[in-house]
Amino acid sequence: MKDIGIGLLGLGVVGSGVAGVLLNKTDKLAEQAGIPLVLKKVLVRDVNKQRLDCFASLAMTDRAEEVITNPEVDIVIEVIGGEHPALEYIKQAITTGKHVVTANKEVIAKYGYELLSLAQKYNVGLRYEASVGSGIPLISPFQQDLAANDISAIYAILNGTTNYILTQMSQEGLDFPLALRQAQELGYAEANPVNDIEGIDAAYKLAILSSLAFHTAVNPKNIYCEGISRLQAKDFKYAKEFGYAIKLLAIAKRDGEAIELRVHPVFIPEDSQLAKVNGVYNAVQVEGNLAGKLVFYGQGAGALPASSAIIADVLTIARNISYRISNAPKIQLNQKLTVKPISDIKIRYYFRLNVLDRPGVLAQISKVLGDNSVSISSVIQKESDLKSQTAVLVIMTHPAEEKAVQKALEEIKQLTVVNEVSNFIRVEG
Amino acid sequence: MKDIGIGLLGLGVVGSGVAGVLLNKTDKLAEQAGIPLVLKKVLVRDVNKQRLDCFASLAMTDRAEEVITNPEVDIVIEVIGGEHPALEYIKQAITTGKHVVTANKEVIAKYGYELLSLAQKYNVGLRYEASVGSGIPLISPFQQDLAANDISAIYAILNGTTNYILTQMSQEGLDFPLALRQAQELGYAEANPVNDIEGIDAAYKLAILSSLAFHTAVNPKNIYCEGISRLQAKDFKYAKEFGYAIKLLAIAKRDGEAIELRVHPVFIPEDSQLAKVNGVYNAVQVEGNLAGKLVFYGQGAGALPASSAIIADVLTIARNISYRISNAPKIQLNQKLTVKPISDIKIRYYFRLNVLDRPGVLAQISKVLGDNSVSISSVIQKESDLKSQTAVLVIMTHPAEEKAVQKALEEIKQLTVVNEVSNFIRVEG
Repeated sequence: MKDIGIGLLGLGVVGSGVAGVLLNKTDKLAEQAGIPLVLKKVLVRDVNKQRLDCFASLAMTDRAEEVITNPEVDIVIEVIGGEHPALEYIKQAITTGKHVVTANKEVIAKYGYELLSLAQKYNVGLRYEASVGSGIPLISPFQQDLAANDISAIYAILNGTTNYILTQMSQEGLDFPLALRQAQELGYAEANPVNDIEGIDAAYKLAILSSLAFHTAVNPKNIYCEGISRLQAKDFKYAKEFGYAIKLLAIAKRDGEAIELRVHPVFIPEDSQLAKVNGVYNAVQVEGNLAGKLVFYGQGAGALPASSAIIADVLTIARNISYRISNAPKIQLNQKLTVKPISDIKIRYYFRLNVLDRPGVLAQISKVLGDNSVSISSVIQKESDLKSQTAVLVIMTHPAEEKAVQKALEEIKQLTVVNEVSNFIRVEG
Repeated sequence: MKDIGIGLLGLGVVGSGVAGVLLNKTDKLAEQAGIPLVLKKVLVRDVNKQRLDCFASLAMTDRAEEVITNPEVDIVIEVIGGEHPALEYIKQAITTGKHVVTANKEVIAKYGYELLSLAQKYNVGLRYEASVGSGIPLISPFQQDLAANDISAIYAILNGTTNYILTQMSQEGLDFPLALRQAQELGYAEANPVNDIEGIDAAYKLAILSSLAFHTAVNPKNIYCEGISRLQAKDFKYAKEFGYAIKLLAIAKRDGEAIELRVHPVFIPEDSQLAKVNGVYNAVQVEGNLAGKLVFYGQGAGALPASSAIIADVLTIARNISYRISNAPKIQLNQKLTVKPISDIKIRYYFRLNVLDRPGVLAQISKVLGDNSVSISSVIQKESDLKSQTAVLVIMTHPAEEKAVQKALEEIKQLTVVNEVSNFIRVEG
């Protein structure tokens, strides 16, 4: 074997980054891998499209088979993204005996177990370090460095778009629609931002991390998911007054044989490590019984960070090939854990209510909460408005069952003294 | 092969942690390794010493050979620490054909290249994840996940003892001797704390990380090293006024074919990630051309975090044994880089001077600095004392050559209007 052939599916932002590294760093990569890596074929949508001069030498095709079943290709890199046809391409590559490196969080979150089993059967590698946190080393530390730990919890900022928007809302006092528009203008949010802002992207990544952490196949469908669109500038103002930041966290917590899996906005103490993660950065906090609390921080998106992870995976596979070591994945997803329904979790809450500004209102609200076993930790009356005779009540609760809180909120909405339940946000830490 | 035999050298704080995990997690570890791990023999200083009940079943010896050359032992874990006899034990284990896992930063920093070459020759594993940052995954991410990157810089808090002391000095306004005494009372600093407070411990760890980052064998002797004992509460006060925190950083920076290697106190911007690392925590910031800025954060010491890293290394070796994969290290230390002398670095400086409180003093000091091409970025006069007619001058410079700064400081000391150069601290970022 004189070189290792690479096939690249996709030449978009990430694909161009990967191709650039493979073309420009041939000597360094050959030295790292112990054998030259050669980019043999690239799948593009339009072979006639005008491209950067540095890509002039690339052999392009618009037929996936020419990459996937190409006898010169040993490793297929999939950076098309999305579920279809990426899933089919990956399967075809594996069953053709190719090693696969992918950055595809959706495919790995939904079909990871199936694909890893397939790779095991065909004795090929399937690596996906770039699928979570982009260039932040996570998959490999979770699989290898934390192997001796019983992991109790993951708290993670896994979506740079929403973290950028929340940072702007917090620092500039913007409301959500304006912060989103700015993020779109800067290219941090897509024209159709629903996957990011509704927490779906973060849920895919949480499914991948929690599968590794808890050695169980987590279906992203079982992750409770709430986005950031109902947050308002006011919530950030009150959060600060209480000493909190608001972040969209992906949370996985082990509780005996059950796990909590959820993505939603939370109040977290402003002096915590995660509260200080601003802008498009990502961070993953993981708690192990031995290692204690660890935080991994870095850029969670972008062509170069993704290339860092993808090329690292390629190098690992290439090194194993050159040392004749099997790349077949070792699957450890044998734990039988149930997912705790969101209604069963116990958690603290922040409520913002618009109420009539008159005596006895707090008593009525407190009674509803008390009747539902939700106990108040603090309450502040804000922004009394003389003209409309209304006031804003901000309430923080002690830990209570989610379903009790939701029932209490429904009853509070019915009170004639309550104009509006303006927002409610869970509190961690 | 029905199991993998473990020999443990040392049953102190870390050794007890490791033994505890090996004894209590047999099923989990067997599952992870693919084969049972059995602790066969433990080297202790005094076999008659009273120990925890859970260690009653351990086969102990006070003769190292009974562990190292024991035919039942496949992997030797060295957690004695210090240079001798740990170095000799590790060498003997390797040449006897045993795999070695060590937490020994001093031995790896000083003899890493030699020992890795020896392990390669004898086709055994030599792993040392616990030697830097304890349970924080660093060695393996540097070797594997960052392999595609050209690393430009490492900025790291690698010593929990000094970071605890600096945190206390900053938050409680303590001077160094009192903060050190408190750290000793809490068990965070040793009775003889010189290795920690003079930066020697951090320099060993920096040597290990920068060898991996720059693919060159770094001798810890070539690392410029300055401790924290001359910092005073006042410096923290002024640092805050200028928007900085003071940390003991281990810094490695690549500049063409040269590297800067240094451990010393620095002013860093108070909103930087590293400034927010408090108490006994460690953090490593690494900058790669692809991954960008990454930060790894966690507990840098303690029995359990060290056990997390040590057992992860043991599992990696055990898995390779059970899959018949070679554990021999791949050495990539072929870069020829020179170490830039500290006198040649360009850096900003903070000075604190005690001067006579009279007209013309600043002019004289500015002239000396200007004559040495050191340019002032800001200067504040503090604490005029009417009785002694003295004042404190705090000066921040623009980047200047270290040797020019040192020469200027010598000349400033000679000025009759200057009572004392109370402190000078480098500024990063």
